Amino acid sequence: MLSHASRSTVDEVVEPITDIGAYMDQLGQQARMAATVMRSLDSGTKNTALQAMAANLASARTELLEANRIDLERGRENGLDAALLDRLALDEARIDAMIEGLHQVAALPDPVGEIDGLRSRPSGIQVGQMRVPLGVVGIIYESRPNVTVEAASLCLKAGNACILRGGSEARESNAAIAACIRAGLREAMVPEAAVQIVATTDRAAVGHLIAMTSYVDVIIPRGGKSLIERISKEARVPVIKHLDGVCHVYVDTDADLDKALAIAVNAKTHRYGTCNTMETLLLDAAVAEALLPRLVAAYAEYGVELRGCERAREILPELVAANDSDWYAEYLAPVLSIRVVDGMEEAMAHIDRYGSHHTDAIVTENYGRARRFMAEVDSSSVMVNASTRFADGNEYGLGAEIGISTDKLHARGPVGLEGLTTRKYIVLGDGHIRV
Amino acid sequence: MLSHASRSTVDEVVEPITDIGAYMDQLGQQARMAATVMRSLDSGTKNTALQAMAANLASARTELLEANRIDLERGRENGLDAALLDRLALDEARIDAMIEGLHQVAALPDPVGEIDGLRSRPSGIQVGQMRVPLGVVGIIYESRPNVTVEAASLCLKAGNACILRGGSEARESNAAIAACIRAGLREAMVPEAAVQIVATTDRAAVGHLIAMTSYVDVIIPRGGKSLIERISKEARVPVIKHLDGVCHVYVDTDADLDKALAIAVNAKTHRYGTCNTMETLLLDAAVAEALLPRLVAAYAEYGVELRGCERAREILPELVAANDSDWYAEYLAPVLSIRVVDGMEEAMAHIDRYGSHHTDAIVTENYGRARRFMAEVDSSSVMVNASTRFADGNEYGLGAEIGISTDKLHARGPVGLEGLTTRKYIVLGDGHIRV
Repeated sequence: MLSHASRSTVDEVVEPITDIGAYMDQLGQQARMAATVMRSLDSGTKNTALQAMAANLASARTELLEANRIDLERGRENGLDAALLDRLALDEARIDAMIEGLHQVAALPDPVGEIDGLRSRPSGIQVGQMRVPLGVVGIIYESRPNVTVEAASLCLKAGNACILRGGSEARESNAAIAACIRAGLREAMVPEAAVQIVATTDRAAVGHLIAMTSYVDVIIPRGGKSLIERISKEARVPVIKHLDGVCHVYVDTDADLDKALAIAVNAKTHRYGTCNTMETLLLDAAVAEALLPRLVAAYAEYGVELRGCERAREILPELVAANDSDWYAEYLAPVLSIRVVDGMEEAMAHIDRYGSHHTDAIVTENYGRARRFMAEVDSSSVMVNASTRFADGNEYGLGAEIGISTDKLHARGPVGLEGLTTRKYIVLGDGHIRV
Repeated sequence: MLSHASRSTVDEVVEPITDIGAYMDQLGQQARMAATVMRSLDSGTKNTALQAMAANLASARTELLEANRIDLERGRENGLDAALLDRLALDEARIDAMIEGLHQVAALPDPVGEIDGLRSRPSGIQVGQMRVPLGVVGIIYESRPNVTVEAASLCLKAGNACILRGGSEARESNAAIAACIRAGLREAMVPEAAVQIVATTDRAAVGHLIAMTSYVDVIIPRGGKSLIERISKEARVPVIKHLDGVCHVYVDTDADLDKALAIAVNAKTHRYGTCNTMETLLLDAAVAEALLPRLVAAYAEYGVELRGCERAREILPELVAANDSDWYAEYLAPVLSIRVVDGMEEAMAHIDRYGSHHTDAIVTENYGRARRFMAEVDSSSVMVNASTRFADGNEYGLGAEIGISTDKLHARGPVGLEGLTTRKYIVLGDGHIRV
């Protein structure tokens, strides 16, 4: 029944896949069957599979690098830009990181089977909630081949079967990684259909995957805004999505200016291309005059371009003028917009209007405002006196993350193993009936 | 800015609503603005509003009954069947129940602001999760006017703004209830747009409501299967849905037959029209011969029609033959299908194939099989030695429920206040930056 899993590597596909719908349906059926087995696998078996995958990656370094070389070569021929080629590239260090990631996931506590809040009810029954796998998870991603390992390992540890659809530009690399994963599953006697990689680069496959409600429980897209918007729009299966991160730091009138400076610089310059990077800095009018010149000097060292509102430009006329589209922008680049506001209310209104509800921080020594900001700002992470760059599964102690959800339902913020599970009610009785 | 809320009662609508899209947009905008206020309301204010609503309902009994009389009369003219008319009808007892429900929701602990698992990370930050309102909840329901009170009260207590779309057959009753709710909000100084009732019976309003992703965070449909399927299919806003309840009781080879009999009778006959009623009884072959005659006698007292598989009919030839569609059927009536199976594996395979993942129970004294059934059956409630009829928000101690979710994401099983909230991450630092 799992024979079709052999299609998961490109090199094993003998005949071309002509009927995409039938092919995807078959992957779906196989995943559903595997999920039935997966939900009762013990932790030991899952960890054995993860460790076997790690060992297989370690002994397939040559094959992985060779497969990746083919992808890179084709990518260069097709004119991929340098950033894409960098994301696509594997080297010894990145292979080491994949191996290390597998060991880390193996070391995480297994969330499956955990029972919360079991309590007795007046009727005599006991009621609690048991954490269980979601079932079948579909993950759609772009060029980075290491996502194949991350996604497969987290889904496996959470007891799910997964169907992975990587970027066509990484197809040889993904096929080589898939071979290591599949061998690891086989060695641990886990059904091979627990991790299936879509073996066609036909875009129609994605359309089928996100519509197979009887086989797929959730879709997690990882990639650019246009990919995620297309999937959210067309999916019939529920989607855990990660849209953009337009993150703010608000420096309150009672801020410690040294902390404010350190946080503002770190939140912008620690990495430019990440979703938890600050894109707009909001300065309370009471601190703007003192802080702006220090900020300008600090950002100059990093070559960050500053764009200011009118009031910021009154203080420092040399700032480029920000326009309305700057407040909505996720620059993902050494550019920062700065706005001077009158108090926290105005800061929170700005965040509500222009932000993406990802991660927002206040810098303040004022207890009441810290408390209000935390309660009222409607973002997946809200911070006091800390850099937005902390919004990350590893920093939060989740061990690993499959993405950062900007949705409100189910999982919000960094999504780790828990977000890949659900909870069902369990009821224990001894012949109890309802009266 | 909230002036349009006066449209929420039919009798106050002066001009007819011609542009449904613009009207729904306005409700959406008002709800979004109200939600911003709602998320920081303290519990006391919310409880004051709930109690004021209860007092208003109590002093508006005459108006409520009169409005309901008009709905019932029109319903009879339009040929509504007896069951629908019964659901539509208000009387003193049902008004009392609505009032009592409001007091109960006021007495529930406020979930908003609860912080879980705050812990220190190696970086020095503290990370936890804070429970916060979802934002704007859209609820679409059918004839029962008391749902207006239940939905409004639970949404309010969870700190959400809500847009309610009741059945057109209950429009006068809903308008009279809405007046009591709105007055209660006003008395407690809560924005009136916290609870808005769609004042048009035009079906296009539903189409707009379920597509307003910028204003509505979640849609909860309550009603028949066709309503819910239509909404799930067309919605662009996430849906918490409650599909059918094809619930099973499996009587294991090690069952105590007295408990099995009591549970089987209770799960079927306690109420016929509810989603947690058992629709199929699975009997292990080892107990079928001893138990079937006792079951037949017991069900005969309640006039329950039994439909059996071939093996059941070998034991009792007088049983009606069940066909494949019986195993999929949610009878919602005094009808029960019975199947004899060889062991728990076959029972679980039947539940997986034909069930709706709502509520399933095993009757057994065997520890290992109880444990396995609980872990492996993939339903929103899984029970050991208890009647499926316990799957209910009140029985589980949630206080009240807005429905029973058959979804896996976000909320599964009975949905109470917690299901109407989400959790965001909070990070406490003291100038911490990421290194």
